[in-house]
Amino acid sequence: METAERWGCFELSFPGKRDGNPFTDYTIHGKFMGEHETVSADGFYDGDGIYKIRFMPSCTGTYRYEIGGTFGTPRSGTVEVTEASEGNHGPVRVADTYYFSYADGTPFYPLGTTCYVWELQTDERISRTLESLKKARFNKIRFCILPKHYDYNLGEPRSYPFEGTPMDSSVLTKENFHLYTGKTEGNRFDFSRPNPAHFRHIEHCILELQKLGIEADLIVMHPYDRWGFSSMPREADELYWRYVIARFSAYRNVWWAAANEYDIMPDKTEEDWEFYGQLMVRYDPYHHLRSIHNCFAFYDHTRPWITHCSIQRQDLYRTAEYTDAWREQYRKPVVLDEIAYEGNIQHGWGNITGEEMVRRFWEGALRGGYPGHGETFLHPQDILWWSHGGELHGESWKRVGFLLDVLKDVPGNGLRPAEKCPADWDCVHAVPAQADTAAEGCYHLYYYSFMRPSFREFSLPEGHEWKVETIDTWNMEITEAGVFRGKCRADLGGRQFMAVRITRLR
Amino acid sequence: METAERWGCFELSFPGKRDGNPFTDYTIHGKFMGEHETVSADGFYDGDGIYKIRFMPSCTGTYRYEIGGTFGTPRSGTVEVTEASEGNHGPVRVADTYYFSYADGTPFYPLGTTCYVWELQTDERISRTLESLKKARFNKIRFCILPKHYDYNLGEPRSYPFEGTPMDSSVLTKENFHLYTGKTEGNRFDFSRPNPAHFRHIEHCILELQKLGIEADLIVMHPYDRWGFSSMPREADELYWRYVIARFSAYRNVWWAAANEYDIMPDKTEEDWEFYGQLMVRYDPYHHLRSIHNCFAFYDHTRPWITHCSIQRQDLYRTAEYTDAWREQYRKPVVLDEIAYEGNIQHGWGNITGEEMVRRFWEGALRGGYPGHGETFLHPQDILWWSHGGELHGESWKRVGFLLDVLKDVPGNGLRPAEKCPADWDCVHAVPAQADTAAEGCYHLYYYSFMRPSFREFSLPEGHEWKVETIDTWNMEITEAGVFRGKCRADLGGRQFMAVRITRLR
Repeated sequence: METAERWGCFELSFPGKRDGNPFTDYTIHGKFMGEHETVSADGFYDGDGIYKIRFMPSCTGTYRYEIGGTFGTPRSGTVEVTEASEGNHGPVRVADTYYFSYADGTPFYPLGTTCYVWELQTDERISRTLESLKKARFNKIRFCILPKHYDYNLGEPRSYPFEGTPMDSSVLTKENFHLYTGKTEGNRFDFSRPNPAHFRHIEHCILELQKLGIEADLIVMHPYDRWGFSSMPREADELYWRYVIARFSAYRNVWWAAANEYDIMPDKTEEDWEFYGQLMVRYDPYHHLRSIHNCFAFYDHTRPWITHCSIQRQDLYRTAEYTDAWREQYRKPVVLDEIAYEGNIQHGWGNITGEEMVRRFWEGALRGGYPGHGETFLHPQDILWWSHGGELHGESWKRVGFLLDVLKDVPGNGLRPAEKCPADWDCVHAVPAQADTAAEGCYHLYYYSFMRPSFREFSLPEGHEWKVETIDTWNMEITEAGVFRGKCRADLGGRQFMAVRITRLR
Repeated sequence: METAERWGCFELSFPGKRDGNPFTDYTIHGKFMGEHETVSADGFYDGDGIYKIRFMPSCTGTYRYEIGGTFGTPRSGTVEVTEASEGNHGPVRVADTYYFSYADGTPFYPLGTTCYVWELQTDERISRTLESLKKARFNKIRFCILPKHYDYNLGEPRSYPFEGTPMDSSVLTKENFHLYTGKTEGNRFDFSRPNPAHFRHIEHCILELQKLGIEADLIVMHPYDRWGFSSMPREADELYWRYVIARFSAYRNVWWAAANEYDIMPDKTEEDWEFYGQLMVRYDPYHHLRSIHNCFAFYDHTRPWITHCSIQRQDLYRTAEYTDAWREQYRKPVVLDEIAYEGNIQHGWGNITGEEMVRRFWEGALRGGYPGHGETFLHPQDILWWSHGGELHGESWKRVGFLLDVLKDVPGNGLRPAEKCPADWDCVHAVPAQADTAAEGCYHLYYYSFMRPSFREFSLPEGHEWKVETIDTWNMEITEAGVFRGKCRADLGGRQFMAVRITRLR
């Protein structure tokens, strides 16, 4: 009997027809029937006459499966699904409106980074990226399935998503590259024939991330294109989307990002985005998280197919500070996937300091959102973390794990901004998402951002004893100020980026 | 023959009636008639049987004056007004909607500070304050006519504005002082009898400022009160206001700030503020600049008696960044009198860094406004610049003169934000208020704020040669990048707080 693991990827592989265009001429689909669920999933052609179908069981026990379609001989069988192994918590879901948890109920606090095409680099650089991710304790990474053409991104990717040949990129320079953006001339790609090797490699990378406990936030479409992939006809788009969904859905750590900067893709309309949204809803049987990321105007994040807001900040000054407003507006989790990147390039979205990045992390996290990181430092070989991965050069990544630990210590599954109170006008005051039964709450986190109070005074709710700690978010030091009743004073040293944590003892 | 100086303070002094209450029982007013203007002004009782009347001539030549009223014997005479002496440019006026210039046409760029009651300190501290102001090159200072009761401000002032005795202040502590705010108990002041010594001393301070070329932005009313001065009846308010106007109007460096934080004075209504506004309009014959400063909501700065916006920022994050929006909204000069203070006290309005203060200065100035400074560092004797003056302890004051020099170098009388342009989304782009005859302008100033580009590229308008300079606003270094035609690149070192100045040569 075949075996699989709960929330593991169970894969079946069959030889089938190879004449004509197997990507479009033949189908393969499966039905996986367990005691508690029946899952219908599409398979895909993996080249060389091989068809595959994948399945991610959400339950343990015996599943019977039936594989059909025009690809070849129908099959059936059973698979015994065992308990999830250690570290496998299942896919991430929205929990309690604004929060995330794994399918097994473990709270998840996405603190991610962006490396748009880290997986299309050399094996060596990919290994370095994985090491860097681990060191920084990022638990989500946003990246593109399609290759990227942009400033600092003029090289060829390691593979293309379709059969064919690209334009001659030797003509590109830093000065003229933008003239080729969105152009299709010189490319000869057959959009009806995906390149299995390209996707197989991405799957390898998704699995490597999975081993590290990192969610793969897959950007399915984007505008940074010189090959025509951003302006394919509807039929080709549908083939691509369904191929992507069929291949990747059964990996538990996959999230779908319909687009990066959907609003600067001149060939796509809202109707297109709604269409892609429906493809995800219809063909991903596991309903992985779904988002769509803006350049300027937000997409209407209230649309039912969108599970959470994937935000690019719209203002140069107030960024993560709007998190609570966005929560109110959309009533979904707020993931701040781009609040500018730490670095020193010429573009204003890529040259904030490490201090400012970390400040935005804390502002966003304490307002009940999930900040995202990125790095854009000039590099002699134009290897910028934001696109290529590799080494981390900044300062903010070193402080991500510290914030993660503070978040994990919050009772319940996350933070929310406290009810507005006049005393809090000059700080961010966060409380646990799930209020304690005692009306006054049992946990308070205050953050002072770029301000630098020498001290702060608190009136602690009567009738309890409270532990008061100061947190230096930059130097990653937690200092116990003492245990108090009634009034207390916390010394903060007149430094920036300080927080105070107040926990009820009894 | 008597002589006076254009925009000088010509004072006449007469003995008169001293029975009853000379402040309310008798009047003195004068008419000063020159070739180009006739000025009617009230005089005032200065105590000890002496009545005074002051006059600030706006023109040269012979003026005849007639002094009347019930104070005593009417007088008349002539005064010969000579040209203004060096450094005397006259009072500051609004020029060209958003800007200021002295009466002689010299542009004025207010870069001020706030020391609420510096003038009510000891002589020694007053001297130190004047030295500090000079060293920092501030050209405006906001301060109160009435004494101040607030955190870090619990001591007695050197004098009171009315005859009488104050409450016993030995009961005050840091913990209880707010319970006394706005209270009147324990005070015995006669609001019908101003204390001439109090006002005489303030005049001395106004003149000391005048010698240094510093405008005295006089805050006539404020809420930080334990003596009852913030809740006097209408009659007493009117006496106070008219006394203030009669005494101070003839000093060319006076500005009127109707209130600090008008909106937290529970005893005063909009009708009151409009009434005070009309008193200034009616009784100040020189129409010195008039403003009213908020705590939370702005006063309606479109009211005709208000000459310019005196802004306290409403947001913790975006402050000076709103300057262009406020210009649009009110169509008056925007003076950012409180955009938080450099310091380390517990309050969020008083603990930003020097870097952030200077950043707000540049943001505000390049958007066509006038930023203001303040300092609130903890001090062993609670001597904080923001209230007491004395020594400056921060870093931002050292950079004020540098900005002033940059502003003075702008062609015309000030900067305005350039028309919005997509390339400018991540910087502040300022151009001269008066555009050059050539459509493309002749001067551009770009500011990168907290961002730290390693370089920026510019497409210079064709047909001209341009000088490109980088400005390190923190280190106060201006470096010539070169003279260019067409495209150019300015190296900015990946540092924060950089600017680029581009000037047309030919």
